[in-house]
Amino acid sequence: MRPPKVLFFDVNETLLDLTKLKQSVAEALGGNEDLVSLWFTTMLQYSLVTTVSHKYYNFGEIGAASLRMVAANYGHHLSDEEAKKVLKPIRSLPAHPEVKEALSRLKANEFKMIALTNSSDEVMREQLENADLAQFFDDNLSVEKAGKYKPHRDVYHWAASKAQVDPADCMMIAAHGWDIAGAIWAGFMGAFIARPEQQRYLLAPKPEIDETDLLKVANTLIALKHSR
Amino acid sequence: MRPPKVLFFDVNETLLDLTKLKQSVAEALGGNEDLVSLWFTTMLQYSLVTTVSHKYYNFGEIGAASLRMVAANYGHHLSDEEAKKVLKPIRSLPAHPEVKEALSRLKANEFKMIALTNSSDEVMREQLENADLAQFFDDNLSVEKAGKYKPHRDVYHWAASKAQVDPADCMMIAAHGWDIAGAIWAGFMGAFIARPEQQRYLLAPKPEIDETDLLKVANTLIALKHSR
Repeated sequence: MRPPKVLFFDVNETLLDLTKLKQSVAEALGGNEDLVSLWFTTMLQYSLVTTVSHKYYNFGEIGAASLRMVAANYGHHLSDEEAKKVLKPIRSLPAHPEVKEALSRLKANEFKMIALTNSSDEVMREQLENADLAQFFDDNLSVEKAGKYKPHRDVYHWAASKAQVDPADCMMIAAHGWDIAGAIWAGFMGAFIARPEQQRYLLAPKPEIDETDLLKVANTLIALKHSR
Repeated sequence: MRPPKVLFFDVNETLLDLTKLKQSVAEALGGNEDLVSLWFTTMLQYSLVTTVSHKYYNFGEIGAASLRMVAANYGHHLSDEEAKKVLKPIRSLPAHPEVKEALSRLKANEFKMIALTNSSDEVMREQLENADLAQFFDDNLSVEKAGKYKPHRDVYHWAASKAQVDPADCMMIAAHGWDIAGAIWAGFMGAFIARPEQQRYLLAPKPEIDETDLLKVANTLIALKHSR
């Protein structure tokens, strides 16, 4: 494994702790926490339904529509406005405890770092500001500019071209199996962060790095860089 | 609305009652029925993850991988073999109670009828035989032959070309909001069957027909044909 030239970071769950958002969603779904995962997965499914139909709506619209659909299946009726209010905590989530230290070390070791998220451009900027992470990134990319959701192959190729490097010189760092699978199939290297309730996609190739938090990923990358 | 020249039918949930499959999955997930929806949605999400990565695995492989991933998140560890055994009831599901009568009436009124499913070719044939529905269809199409999952636009265009008609002369009949949304965005007409725990995709155009069972859909189509 060669050290990657550019590190791409997923944002939601990978860098940011979604607990506050999950609590808000669970409350809207009658306190049933199992339905929070169902909502999140439905949102991801419908982001891809939209992409394979050659359409685009922003992640907030798809998230709110998905919440209303899941809620209706369990007898809870939400207006579009109510659903968007439930999802508002996504804009002000804290970073996971080890994230700042990990990003600082990578930055000190001169890695080029870019955020690459399904969140809209506006929400991404608010998220990184509010979590005090904006200063670590050389660039911030929302899929909004590509018009397709991750893990569509075109998104990773677009991101690599924005960074002016080959896909083979890129590494995707994410806590979602689907993001790592799509990135690897697009020719990137991958680092999976196995946060609680996250699994690798079992039909995809194994990523180069598979760790339980971002600090371990950072230390592996730094050691690799210095071993050359 | 003009009468469609060809009716395309989704199979799982639309024609077939998934109760036996859901019971088997719930049992493998510690009896928690909310997790059955999470498994089914995860399978659909990962079928699209595979498609947007320009890969193809059959629906049984993706279903089993998704079941193992959901199970692992809740502390249940399943081998690939065990997961496939859990999903075996999908091959021998009964039709929903009104389906045979509805298909008979449509057939008697000379509609051209084609099954169009995400199931593999082999599983689709077994499903239609076991539910005693095979005799109603002029053709049976599995997405396996298209190499992409519904609701990718290309699947509907491929299906229309197999039937030698324009997309505008086709109607997709399905109990899944994503299937109807994708079909409509591909230029088909749509008939949504609002079975329990099924919702239309709120960001997609409304389908021409929105009913609670297939017999009502059939009666609407037959009345339309005779009103011309």
